[in-house]
Amino acid sequence: MNVKVLGTEELKERLNIGEVIEGVKAVYEAKTKGEIIVWPLVYHEFEDGKGSNMDIRSGGIKGDINIHGMKMFNEFPGNHELGIPSHIAWIMVFDSTNGMPIGVVDGAYVTGMRTGSAGAIGAKALARPESETLMLLGAGQQAMFQIAATLTLFPGLKKVLIADPVNQPNAERFADNCCSRLYNEFKMDRSEVIFEAVTDLAQAVGEADIIITVTPSRSPVIKAEWVKPGTHFSCIGSDMEGKEEIDPEIFRGARVFGDDLDQCKRVGEMEIPLKVGTITEAELGGEIGQVLTGEVQGRTSEDQITIFDATGISALDLITAKIALEA
Amino acid sequence: MNVKVLGTEELKERLNIGEVIEGVKAVYEAKTKGEIIVWPLVYHEFEDGKGSNMDIRSGGIKGDINIHGMKMFNEFPGNHELGIPSHIAWIMVFDSTNGMPIGVVDGAYVTGMRTGSAGAIGAKALARPESETLMLLGAGQQAMFQIAATLTLFPGLKKVLIADPVNQPNAERFADNCCSRLYNEFKMDRSEVIFEAVTDLAQAVGEADIIITVTPSRSPVIKAEWVKPGTHFSCIGSDMEGKEEIDPEIFRGARVFGDDLDQCKRVGEMEIPLKVGTITEAELGGEIGQVLTGEVQGRTSEDQITIFDATGISALDLITAKIALEA
Repeated sequence: MNVKVLGTEELKERLNIGEVIEGVKAVYEAKTKGEIIVWPLVYHEFEDGKGSNMDIRSGGIKGDINIHGMKMFNEFPGNHELGIPSHIAWIMVFDSTNGMPIGVVDGAYVTGMRTGSAGAIGAKALARPESETLMLLGAGQQAMFQIAATLTLFPGLKKVLIADPVNQPNAERFADNCCSRLYNEFKMDRSEVIFEAVTDLAQAVGEADIIITVTPSRSPVIKAEWVKPGTHFSCIGSDMEGKEEIDPEIFRGARVFGDDLDQCKRVGEMEIPLKVGTITEAELGGEIGQVLTGEVQGRTSEDQITIFDATGISALDLITAKIALEA
Repeated sequence: MNVKVLGTEELKERLNIGEVIEGVKAVYEAKTKGEIIVWPLVYHEFEDGKGSNMDIRSGGIKGDINIHGMKMFNEFPGNHELGIPSHIAWIMVFDSTNGMPIGVVDGAYVTGMRTGSAGAIGAKALARPESETLMLLGAGQQAMFQIAATLTLFPGLKKVLIADPVNQPNAERFADNCCSRLYNEFKMDRSEVIFEAVTDLAQAVGEADIIITVTPSRSPVIKAEWVKPGTHFSCIGSDMEGKEEIDPEIFRGARVFGDDLDQCKRVGEMEIPLKVGTITEAELGGEIGQVLTGEVQGRTSEDQITIFDATGISALDLITAKIALEA
């Protein structure tokens, strides 16, 4: 017996964002039916004085999909100087009907694809359908996946604004290359869309219908007074206690959903708003899967602020790996 | 980037028992220096009505070896009827200097090789050097690995007795094939050794200098009154609460070591003797690594009963996988 292994190049050939979006939606829906299993996180910090650490996230999906497995994630910041990747992740997937391995895949690209899909699915479920302007806060690894997935679910988008408040030249470069990267990396021709680097963050926020945040920020970057009524936020960057990207005031009166509410309350964008009281647990809308299945209404008015807090679920890695392995 | 994968056939070509014994010894010694990291066990029972379950054992080895990783183990008893393996295990190993993957290997063969080495190392450290007769209690998957490893460390052994009290024909068949299997599977020519199925267990126990137990028994199979002075036991089968293979009375006055004392007290062969009081915690000799490094004396007299309680350490899988991947 041997096992199929897919590296990044093979994953790029095998995965398309539309299929990954369908897989991620299926996981969110499975979660509302109690079909997602999450096993305890294993976490370790190495004593190398460089902040190196690893975690193992494992779990499964019951029901028709019926798989289990894990992602081993290594973060070695010192690798940067050595010219090798500092984030290394590998996913193993098993068939839960018989325990046999389905395969092993490089986790970096899979994480990008499933996280991009998550942000876009939150927007599709909660943003105004006639949305025309998307703003990305953050122009790192994750941004391109978010843009590709959101343009897939919103073919009517006219403009994409890219903000990188800590590195303006990076935002410029990112915006300049966006259209060709979409074509080369995602086989998407979106030459009719305007891609623009943000110079005035307040103005860009006021213009955006959908804002996706993908920074590792630990203090709010987007202020409440900049936001226009009806804006949707997909908050992706906050996945650890103390992280926050948007003003807690934005949560006041907003319609808020999470991918996994227990986890979001602990480590998501909603952690601090709940602590400072700009929103209460009783005011939370629920989980995004409940909106997707029609169990709970998402947006309830045109002017409402909607927020999707995505902290990541191990099952998203597994379903995406499975899609690639079976492609 | 891609990852090296080794299935059973490749592992058989790459691993020899002598090298695995050296690797296992290195891990036991590293453990005494506090260089073995064990992360929390993840365990799950599937709701398939067949007793299917999985566990993830993870950890690492610090110091010169400097690796970390995990073994995903799936037990699916229902597979038997389908003609596919019911025990499926895969190991992933990473370099702890930079988090990069070293590779992925099939865990079944690795588990056999490292467990066989463990039993033999315990015997080498504690049994009388002039031992001539080895007895195996149990003639399943594990037995051949134990015999190959013990014959490697005791070239002077003259006789190997194989007992399978619940399936005598199995013991006969096993004994008949032993010599040719050693030659074919381990490239060991031991045609001078007598391999014999046990018909009278009491008599065989009385004849043995070294006894290795590899059954899933939940009640003692070997009685204290059968055992001759100076006998060594390597108890391998007991790795779960409630399991026991030898009479707790055998522990009375014996010199007892474990592979990982905390784990042995909980789930090893010593669990029940400690509970019924035939040995106390204060009377335990320590960990086998302490004998290997010379920190603690093993056997202190010719007539003493010695016992090595091996419950398994995740690091043994990692070192064995590493040896194969780098062969």
